[in-house]
Amino acid sequence: METCPDHESLIRQCYHLASTSVGRGNHPFGALLWREGGVFMEAENTVLTGCDITAHAELNLVRKVSASVAPGALADAILYSSAEPCVMCCGAIYWSGIRRVVFGVSAPSLASVTGGHYVIESREIYARLKPGIEVMGPVLESEGLAEHRRFWPGC
Amino acid sequence: METCPDHESLIRQCYHLASTSVGRGNHPFGALLWREGGVFMEAENTVLTGCDITAHAELNLVRKVSASVAPGALADAILYSSAEPCVMCCGAIYWSGIRRVVFGVSAPSLASVTGGHYVIESREIYARLKPGIEVMGPVLESEGLAEHRRFWPGC
Repeated sequence: METCPDHESLIRQCYHLASTSVGRGNHPFGALLWREGGVFMEAENTVLTGCDITAHAELNLVRKVSASVAPGALADAILYSSAEPCVMCCGAIYWSGIRRVVFGVSAPSLASVTGGHYVIESREIYARLKPGIEVMGPVLESEGLAEHRRFWPGC
Repeated sequence: METCPDHESLIRQCYHLASTSVGRGNHPFGALLWREGGVFMEAENTVLTGCDITAHAELNLVRKVSASVAPGALADAILYSSAEPCVMCCGAIYWSGIRRVVFGVSAPSLASVTGGHYVIESREIYARLKPGIEVMGPVLESEGLAEHRRFWPGC
C-alpha cells in the first residue's frame, strides 16, 4: 500500500531548501520529488551562482530526475515546490511525465511581494495540456511568504 | 545603423541545425540568437544524447546565452527557432530578456505531423506576460515540416 504523503511537511521541506538556496547566494526557491513513499530528489534555485537564468528549482529538479528516470515511470510521483511553478517550469514538469504538483506560495501572492508582474497560474497552463496535471496549493502560504519578504524587502 | 536580419535565411540556418541534431541522435530542432548584426550563438536539441528532458534547442540556447550576457543586454536580440517554442521554452525566453522571436514551423502544424497534442501557441503565452514578446512566424513552414515528416514517419 502506498504511503500517503504529508503535504505540509513536504512543503516545509521545500521552504527549508528555499532558505538554503538564499544562504548559497541564490533566490529563495526549493523543490523536491516525492516518489515511491519517500523524497526521491531535491533541488534549489541556482540562477545566480550558476549564471543560468533557467536554473529555477523545479527545472533543476526535472533535469536531475530525467537523467535517471524515464517519463513513464513518474506518473505516480508528486513534485513539491516552495512556490507555484512559472510557465517555464510548468512546461518542464509537463515534459518530465510528472502528473501531480503541490506548491506553497501562489504565483499571485509571490508577485505581490516581489513586485513582479509575472502571473499565469499553473492550473491555467495545465488546463490546456493533455494529459492534464493535478495541482494543489497554496499550502502554508504565509510561512513561505516570510522568506520572500526578507529577500525582497524593498518590494 | 543596425543590419536588418534576413528572416528566411536565418530560419533555414535553424532547419540546418535541426538536421544536424537528428544526425547526432536527437530530435529535429535548432535555434540561434541574432544579436548586433550577426549570429551570436546556436543550439540544437540534446534531449536524447544528454538524457535531459528540458534540453530543447531554445532552452539550451537561453542557457548558453545567459551564461555570458545579462538579460538587459538582450532587448535588441532576436531568437530564431526551427519550430514555435513550447510553453517551457516560451518561459525560458521570457526570463532571458530576449524580446523578439521568429519561428519556422508553427505549434499546430508540428502537432499535426508528430501526432502530439501539445498546442499552446506562443503568442497566447506572451499576450499574458509583461513586457510582451514580439512573435513572427511561421516562416518557410513547408521546408521545415519536411524534416519532421522524415523523423516521425508513422505519425
